[in-house]
Amino acid sequence: MFDASVPNLSELAVTIDDGCLKIPLQGKGTKYKIQLSVEKVTDDEETRPPSDHLAAAVSSPSVQRARFSNHVSLKSILCRPDGGAGLAGQRVRIFGWVRTGRLQGKGSFAFLEVNDGSCPAYLQVMVDASLTDLSKLIAKGTCVVVDGCLKLPPQGTKQKIELKVEEVVAVGTVDQVTYPFPKNKPSLEHLRKFLHLRARTNLMASVARIRNALAFATHSFFQSQSFLYVQTPIITTSDCEGAGEMFQVTTLISSTEKLERDLIENPPPTEADVEAARLVVKERGEAVAQLKASKEASKETITASVAELNDAKLSLSRTVEISRLKPGLPKKDGETDYSQDFFGRQAFLSVSGQLQLESYACALGSVYTFGPTFRAENSHTSRHLAEFWMVEPELALADLEEDMDCAEAYVRHMCTWLLDNCYDDLEVMAENVDYGCIDRLKLVASTPFVRITYTDAIELLKKAMAQRQKFENQVEWGIDLASEHERYLTEIVFQKPVIVYNYPKGIKAFYMRVNDDGKTVAAMDVLVPKVGELIGGSQREERYAVLMNRLEEMGLPVEPYEWYLDLRRHGTVKHSGFGLGFERMVLFATGMENIRDVIPFPRYPGRADL
Amino acid sequence: MFDASVPNLSELAVTIDDGCLKIPLQGKGTKYKIQLSVEKVTDDEETRPPSDHLAAAVSSPSVQRARFSNHVSLKSILCRPDGGAGLAGQRVRIFGWVRTGRLQGKGSFAFLEVNDGSCPAYLQVMVDASLTDLSKLIAKGTCVVVDGCLKLPPQGTKQKIELKVEEVVAVGTVDQVTYPFPKNKPSLEHLRKFLHLRARTNLMASVARIRNALAFATHSFFQSQSFLYVQTPIITTSDCEGAGEMFQVTTLISSTEKLERDLIENPPPTEADVEAARLVVKERGEAVAQLKASKEASKETITASVAELNDAKLSLSRTVEISRLKPGLPKKDGETDYSQDFFGRQAFLSVSGQLQLESYACALGSVYTFGPTFRAENSHTSRHLAEFWMVEPELALADLEEDMDCAEAYVRHMCTWLLDNCYDDLEVMAENVDYGCIDRLKLVASTPFVRITYTDAIELLKKAMAQRQKFENQVEWGIDLASEHERYLTEIVFQKPVIVYNYPKGIKAFYMRVNDDGKTVAAMDVLVPKVGELIGGSQREERYAVLMNRLEEMGLPVEPYEWYLDLRRHGTVKHSGFGLGFERMVLFATGMENIRDVIPFPRYPGRADL
Repeated sequence: MFDASVPNLSELAVTIDDGCLKIPLQGKGTKYKIQLSVEKVTDDEETRPPSDHLAAAVSSPSVQRARFSNHVSLKSILCRPDGGAGLAGQRVRIFGWVRTGRLQGKGSFAFLEVNDGSCPAYLQVMVDASLTDLSKLIAKGTCVVVDGCLKLPPQGTKQKIELKVEEVVAVGTVDQVTYPFPKNKPSLEHLRKFLHLRARTNLMASVARIRNALAFATHSFFQSQSFLYVQTPIITTSDCEGAGEMFQVTTLISSTEKLERDLIENPPPTEADVEAARLVVKERGEAVAQLKASKEASKETITASVAELNDAKLSLSRTVEISRLKPGLPKKDGETDYSQDFFGRQAFLSVSGQLQLESYACALGSVYTFGPTFRAENSHTSRHLAEFWMVEPELALADLEEDMDCAEAYVRHMCTWLLDNCYDDLEVMAENVDYGCIDRLKLVASTPFVRITYTDAIELLKKAMAQRQKFENQVEWGIDLASEHERYLTEIVFQKPVIVYNYPKGIKAFYMRVNDDGKTVAAMDVLVPKVGELIGGSQREERYAVLMNRLEEMGLPVEPYEWYLDLRRHGTVKHSGFGLGFERMVLFATGMENIRDVIPFPRYPGRADL
Repeated sequence: MFDASVPNLSELAVTIDDGCLKIPLQGKGTKYKIQLSVEKVTDDEETRPPSDHLAAAVSSPSVQRARFSNHVSLKSILCRPDGGAGLAGQRVRIFGWVRTGRLQGKGSFAFLEVNDGSCPAYLQVMVDASLTDLSKLIAKGTCVVVDGCLKLPPQGTKQKIELKVEEVVAVGTVDQVTYPFPKNKPSLEHLRKFLHLRARTNLMASVARIRNALAFATHSFFQSQSFLYVQTPIITTSDCEGAGEMFQVTTLISSTEKLERDLIENPPPTEADVEAARLVVKERGEAVAQLKASKEASKETITASVAELNDAKLSLSRTVEISRLKPGLPKKDGETDYSQDFFGRQAFLSVSGQLQLESYACALGSVYTFGPTFRAENSHTSRHLAEFWMVEPELALADLEEDMDCAEAYVRHMCTWLLDNCYDDLEVMAENVDYGCIDRLKLVASTPFVRITYTDAIELLKKAMAQRQKFENQVEWGIDLASEHERYLTEIVFQKPVIVYNYPKGIKAFYMRVNDDGKTVAAMDVLVPKVGELIGGSQREERYAVLMNRLEEMGLPVEPYEWYLDLRRHGTVKHSGFGLGFERMVLFATGMENIRDVIPFPRYPGRADL
């Protein structure tokens, strides 16, 4: 199958000749990366010969039906270079939701602008009143499935193609009383109350498609560099980064609640009940003793009596056990007894997969993870989520410079990818949210990142202050750069992405490699206009003795890190890595202001809808 | 960049002619899927002209350095069609871990078999004693970074190429006293105790590479079909599938523990303390009243006295507040007070992203999710995990048949992908674990799946019982098929993948579409040899009234599903989807027996290491 969505294909002048696909190795003055994947197709799988596929995509105009559902996507009609005009005359089935609908010609026909989510563009659909009750079709939000014929619209209209409906196949009406977005452009706050419906708006749909593109660009980038995708754990017992801000994962509360309900339904035995049970045991014990002492009792009688005694003993031990049950979480020595929890110990949601990922980098070479991470921070800002996604690569045998090379190449790859694959969605963002977002992506895609040491960055900030630049936070060697400092560097001083590296070791994590100066560590942050810090990374301390020193210096316990130290005890190797906050990248790309609007189902204090 | 790892490239007879890459559209009697991705490269990014890249991969033999770390991967040497022989004479830096090392020539040199995780093959490395202390190199698990020259080994040896070391750049030694895998082939149980090191064994490394390939094959498949990747939430308040088996996500326990520690350090005020504080308020109130009544008190004196009274009142209210603090989880009306939890209500780890994903399918068309899911089941079997990954596509406008088409195409795509990209790893599995795993993949890749209704499946099983086949579980229309039934169908009756569809509605979920017979629902399960059920899916009930009926029929509350019902109230559309247990697919592909060995960091009752 030939991917028709490949950008610049015509520019590349791919030709078919003698049953051969020809690709020139250089365009006019431009270089290309060409990646070719070839997959054998067994004969019974494909219904059309490959030449047909190629014909469909490269030369002759014909519609492409979706493979697993009987319709033609609007993207495959409207996102052709000719806007679909070349498809005039084709019969198609399309579906989508009505964005605007209006009756025309005194109700004799209707115009619907329909969108199916495959692209931001609408198809204009014309339905005649003879086909159906038009009043059911025109409400915003209605879903229509229609068969029809593509035709060129009258000259002078903005559409390149429209659909004249021949049959209305299905209609999903809208309950207009309760539909929450009856008008255009509901506010983002309003949309946040309806997470299950907000992807039906143009803006949120474009954000979702850009997010999808960034995710796939991430996998493509690392896979093309032979990094292996490793799924690090979500539930973790490594509470390394401070349990205070971690969510706990537990079944203890539900088992406690169940116990408490049981105790109410079946009140536990009192001391008197226990005493009574004890008395029964005593009496039966005496009865057995008497029978044994008496010479007249038969074997059967004694056996029966002993059985009664054993029953009484069992009943006593059960009574004692139940009488000890108490409401509340199980305790042991005054602390919560986590040996009774699902994992036999306290467990949390991961705040980062890095440490576990390092164990794979120190076995398989370069690896990456891309998964959800969690922070139970009580932050109500537009930049924090309780559940967010992180991309974390870990590069075997790489030092800090190579780590920076990788971070830069990855970010630039994502920007280029969006410009190549999502230009229409970016235009939606530029029109509605952030006029500069496309230029920002072009800038980042085409400009080498500035790299300066932390020490130089501090000097720059001090110089700026001498020239009357004001900051809320003090500037002094040893401070952690505040967001205002980071944005000043990337937005004002350099006006492009900046990588600051070699930070004071006092403000950085124990696992970062100590530089030869003994004062700084091989850490780096990538700062970009609009969002500030996008990436944080470091070369990892691979020297066992130095790492042990650092743990001691920082007053950290050694025991929880024994497994991590093992990676240095046995076959240690230089390695580096970084983490990119995926939602920050989506903010950067889309120009959206609130992080709650760039993840499908945002979680933050007080809210976890659906 | 031209991907040299593309299989069958030579078979495809790609040629370069006139600065043009030529690809014949059909091989000898075989059809190919060709996917081409073209990406513009800005001039300052690449250091070598593209023709050089192509030359490297297609025509002239030269080594390819990793892009972000100064070494050549063993895969790029050993996985060439010539096994690396064509690279003889090249100088390279490689790194890796010593699998076996031995001194030769009375200790004058050493042979090391080195692996870097990029492929299962080893490179034989020869180090002369003049270069370093050889005794530090030969222990299993040692990491070496070496520069050297590739050379052809003496004729008659099994290697195609070996490395003569010229400089030992770095060595990560092994603490042989504590290294847990000093010998070959440690048992899988033993490996499970060392999750941070087990990827260094050949078997676990192959499993990890196969898992990576399956994950990327998943994304490639759905992206190539224009499905959008949607990240459904991990933390959820939709406890639809029964909270009993869900993990709770909370900060209540840690805040309760903190409170309890505070109460021990600062015992809460007693009734007497409260009474004393009350007395102070009373006295000061009287003092103020007296001053105000007396005509001699100055304004300042009265103001000071009132201030003292206010202090006393504040102190009293604080004392009362603290005296009411109690150890234990916060309660309200006898129930846990979740309004004090992080999300203001009870929250859980998701067991499936399906319902949330449907909201995106009903907005953007076909979508998929691929993420972790959780079950707090107390299962100690080799087939259950508390944390596992699921692939869940949702197809807009698709019915059950198209859903089955998609499931079949996806599974076959993954099998083909592995055969094309991981043959060497599959050979490791076939040699060490499951002789038949490659044939099984070939079978599934090349054979159309059998499709039978549930009713026919029951008939088949009854017929088998009449012919003396024994099952532990009864066979009768209306039962849920047990694992033994499923495996009998796929392994014995058909000996290929089987899709069973149209199940009795009584045993299936409320959201599955009711068939016209009123007795069955449009559900389907894909059964494959070795693991049984691999996929479960259904067409979703898109009709509002029918869905409401189903909820009622099953005694489910409507309120938690209001948002889900909204998808049917407003612009409803036919749609279908399925879920694939990703670890089951890895079990199927690798032939491994225990699900704990096909996920990097397994979580199950009593264990969540790292």
